[in-house]
Amino acid sequence: VTIEPRVLRQFAETVGPSHVLTDADVVAGYAADFTGRFVGATPAVVRPADTEQVASVVAVCRSAGLPIVPQGGNTGLVGGGVPLAGEVLLSLRRIDEISDVDEVSGQLTAGAGASLATVQQRAAAAGWRYGVDMASRDSATIGGTVATNAGGLRVLRHGDTRAQVLGIEAVLGTGSTVSHLGGLIKDNTGYHLPSLLCGSEGTLGIVTAVRLRLVAPAVDPVVALVGLGSVAEAVTTAGHLRRQVHGCEAIELFVAEGLELVCRVAELPLPTARMHPAYLLVEVSGGEGASTALAAALDAAPGVGETAVATDAARAAQLWRYREAHTEAINSLGPPHKLDVTLPASALAEFMGVVGAAVHAVAPGSRTWLFGHAADGNVHVNVTGVPPDRDDVDDVVFELVSGYGGSISAEHGIGTAKRAWLHLNRSAAELDAFRGIKKALDPDAILNPNVLLSV
Amino acid sequence: VTIEPRVLRQFAETVGPSHVLTDADVVAGYAADFTGRFVGATPAVVRPADTEQVASVVAVCRSAGLPIVPQGGNTGLVGGGVPLAGEVLLSLRRIDEISDVDEVSGQLTAGAGASLATVQQRAAAAGWRYGVDMASRDSATIGGTVATNAGGLRVLRHGDTRAQVLGIEAVLGTGSTVSHLGGLIKDNTGYHLPSLLCGSEGTLGIVTAVRLRLVAPAVDPVVALVGLGSVAEAVTTAGHLRRQVHGCEAIELFVAEGLELVCRVAELPLPTARMHPAYLLVEVSGGEGASTALAAALDAAPGVGETAVATDAARAAQLWRYREAHTEAINSLGPPHKLDVTLPASALAEFMGVVGAAVHAVAPGSRTWLFGHAADGNVHVNVTGVPPDRDDVDDVVFELVSGYGGSISAEHGIGTAKRAWLHLNRSAAELDAFRGIKKALDPDAILNPNVLLSV
Repeated sequence: VTIEPRVLRQFAETVGPSHVLTDADVVAGYAADFTGRFVGATPAVVRPADTEQVASVVAVCRSAGLPIVPQGGNTGLVGGGVPLAGEVLLSLRRIDEISDVDEVSGQLTAGAGASLATVQQRAAAAGWRYGVDMASRDSATIGGTVATNAGGLRVLRHGDTRAQVLGIEAVLGTGSTVSHLGGLIKDNTGYHLPSLLCGSEGTLGIVTAVRLRLVAPAVDPVVALVGLGSVAEAVTTAGHLRRQVHGCEAIELFVAEGLELVCRVAELPLPTARMHPAYLLVEVSGGEGASTALAAALDAAPGVGETAVATDAARAAQLWRYREAHTEAINSLGPPHKLDVTLPASALAEFMGVVGAAVHAVAPGSRTWLFGHAADGNVHVNVTGVPPDRDDVDDVVFELVSGYGGSISAEHGIGTAKRAWLHLNRSAAELDAFRGIKKALDPDAILNPNVLLSV
Repeated sequence: VTIEPRVLRQFAETVGPSHVLTDADVVAGYAADFTGRFVGATPAVVRPADTEQVASVVAVCRSAGLPIVPQGGNTGLVGGGVPLAGEVLLSLRRIDEISDVDEVSGQLTAGAGASLATVQQRAAAAGWRYGVDMASRDSATIGGTVATNAGGLRVLRHGDTRAQVLGIEAVLGTGSTVSHLGGLIKDNTGYHLPSLLCGSEGTLGIVTAVRLRLVAPAVDPVVALVGLGSVAEAVTTAGHLRRQVHGCEAIELFVAEGLELVCRVAELPLPTARMHPAYLLVEVSGGEGASTALAAALDAAPGVGETAVATDAARAAQLWRYREAHTEAINSLGPPHKLDVTLPASALAEFMGVVGAAVHAVAPGSRTWLFGHAADGNVHVNVTGVPPDRDDVDDVVFELVSGYGGSISAEHGIGTAKRAWLHLNRSAAELDAFRGIKKALDPDAILNPNVLLSV
C-alpha cells in the first residue's frame, strides 16, 4: 500500500503532522479489529480535530482518488471499520466534544468520537439518561454507534440508535458538509438524513456530530428472572409483558444449556430452585406500581414456572449477571464464531430448536449457544468448536434465518463480513435502490467502498 | 389538461374502467383540498387495487411522460396531494387491507388506503394500541400519514409516524417495487428506506403498505390542567415533567387569550378558579402511581398556580375539551391562516411573546392565536382577520421562526405551500443532498414533481 508524499503533506497541512500516522506499529492498532478476525493495512491514519478538517481530508482523498475507511472506537464485529483493501484510515476519535445538556428539552450534541459511556455520564449528571446501552460502552464511539445503528440492551424501551438521533452533521461522499443539529423534535422539512446516515456504515457520509434526544432516568428498577417451560412460552410471555406492563426496560432470553455453562464457569448458584428449559430476565422501571403490575402479568402468563424477583440494586445486579456472564462463559470454551440474527416472534422458538443441529451437520465438532433479546427477536448465535471464519457455518445459519423471514444482521451491520449474504434479505429492487442512494451521496465510491454493498 | 385516449385505455386495462375517473364532477373532489385553499385539475383519477396495479400505472405514466400526484385521504394542509399542475391523480384509498394483528410481536400490516382510525381500532381490538393519533383520524390514510411523517398528539410518548414504521412497500419513481414488511425490530441490513420514504411527501416513491409497530394501551390515564404564570414557566415545567414522570402521554400548551375565546365560543366555564397566563394540559398513563408522581413533580415545578386533576374518563374528556376546542373557537372568527412551526425549547416563550405583534405589523386587522404541543416545541400559529393566502404573513412568521432556529414545518410538511421558504431551514448542501436522493429514486421526476423541492 503506497501513497504519494504530496498527499501525506496535504494531510499534515490539514490536521497537523502529529495526526498523520504512518509508522507501522502505530498504524497496526487501527488496521485490525479487536477480535483479530479482520486484519488490514493502511498507508496513513489521519486524525482530524473537527468537521472542517474532515471535509478537507475528504477533499484531498477525492482529488487523489484514495478511498477512505472511517473509524470510531473500532469495536465493530463485521469488518466495517478496518482498511481491508489498503484504504486511508480516518479516525474520528479526536472529535469528542460533548455540549452541555439542554435540561429543558433533554438533549445534547456529541462529537462522533465521544464514547458511549461519556455521553451516558453527561446525560446522567444532568438528570437525564441516554437511551442506548451496550457492553462496549467504554470504547464504542457515538459516531460508530450511529453509523451502525447500534441496538443493545434497551431497544425494547427506547428504540435503536436511529430513534435517538434528532440531527446530524456529516461530510458526504460528495464532499459537502451537511449540518442540522437544532434538535427540533418535529421538523418535516425534507428527507430525513439522520435516519439515512444512521446504519449506513460509513458508506454515504462521515458522521462528525449528532444531536441526541435523552430519556427520563429509570425509576426504582425491578428485575425478575423467570423460569419457563419452553422458548415458545418465553416468546409468548415476552409479548404478554410488553402489552401488560408499562415501563419494560429489557426482556432478555437464555436457555438451560447456557445457564448451566454460566453457573459452572462463573461459579454461580442456580438462580431458581430447579433448572427450567428457558429463562426471561425482565427489568421494569417504576418501583412498587411496576412491581405489582409485573407480578400480575406473570401470574396471567402461560408457562411460568418459578420467578426470582429483585427490588434492590445489589440483587438486581446478581440476576443480570446470569444473562451477562454468557459471553465470558462461552469464550472460556475458545473463541466462538459469533453471529447475530433476528427472527420473527412466530419463528423464534422453532429456529432456536433446530439451528444447533443444522450447524452440527456441517461442523460435527461444534456446539451452538443461544441467547438474546426476547422482545426484539434478536438471537446471538455463538458456535464453539469451529474456527471463527467458517463460511459454511454462516451459510447454514443465514439460510435458515432467511428461510424463517429473519434478518442476517440484527445489530452488528453487514460490513465486509456479511456482504456475500445480503441478497438473502434484500431483493434486487432494494439493492438497486441502495446503489442509487450510494451513487447520489458518494458518487465516486470513496467512502467505505468495500462495505455493505458489492459495487 | 389533456391525456391521450391510448393512455386512458392502458389505465383502464390495469385497474378496470370503473376505477379511471375523468368526469369533471367526480374528479373535482380529488383535485382540491378540503379547505379549498388548493384547487387543481387532473386529466384522470386512477384508483388501483393493489401494489402491482400501482406499479403498472407508474409504468404507463413513465412511458407517457405523465407526472403523478399520489393521494390518500386528502387531509393535507400544504397542497402536497393535489394535482396543481394537471398531474395524474393516483388515489390509494382502495388499498385499504389491514392484516391480523400479530399479538405476540404487537404489529400489523396496513395498506396505504386504510384510515388511521381503522388501524387504531384493529390494534385496540387485539389489546394493543397504535401510537399515532390526530384529529383527522377518520379521513387521513396510513399512506398519507407515512408520506408526511404525521405527528399529532402522542409524539411525546411514542414518537412520530417514522418511529412506528418497521417496514415498507412502495413503488419507487424508478418503477421498481420494494417490499420489506417482515416487521423485524432489529434489522441492520442496508439503508433504512422506511425512514427515508416517511416524510418524503410522495416525491420518491408511492407507499402502498407498511408494517407498523404497536404499543401497550394506556393504563388509567390521569389528566391535569395546570395554570402557570407564563409561557416560559410552562416550557420549564414541561421539561421537568418529561424528566420526572414516566408515562407522560401528552403535554399540551395554550394561553389565556385562547382559553378566553374557547370558554366564550364553546360556552365552557373557566377550568380554574382564576385565569392564568399559560396552561399545560398533561396526560399521564399509569393510574395511581402515575397520579402520585405527577402531583409530586408539579409540587416541585416552578410557577404552577392551580391544578385541576381528572382521574376518571368523563372529567378527563372535559379537561381535554379546553385544548381541543381551540380549533373550532378560532374557526368561528372566520377561516384562519394556519401555520405550523417548531421552536427550540429555549426560544418558545420569546417567540410566542413577539409573533402576534410581528404579524400585526404587516396585517393590521389580524389577530394571532397560539397553542400547541409544549414538549415538542410545536406551535400552531393561527392568524384571523387576514385572507388565508397572505404570503407576507408567512414571510414574517417563517423568518421569525428560522431566526430562532426553529422549523417552518413541524408536522404538515412542505408540500407546495412552503417550498419558497424551505431555504430558511435547509442549507444549499442539504438541498443538494435531497436533490441527489430524488434523482436516484425518481430519475425522471414523475412523482409529485411540484412538491417539496424546487427542481
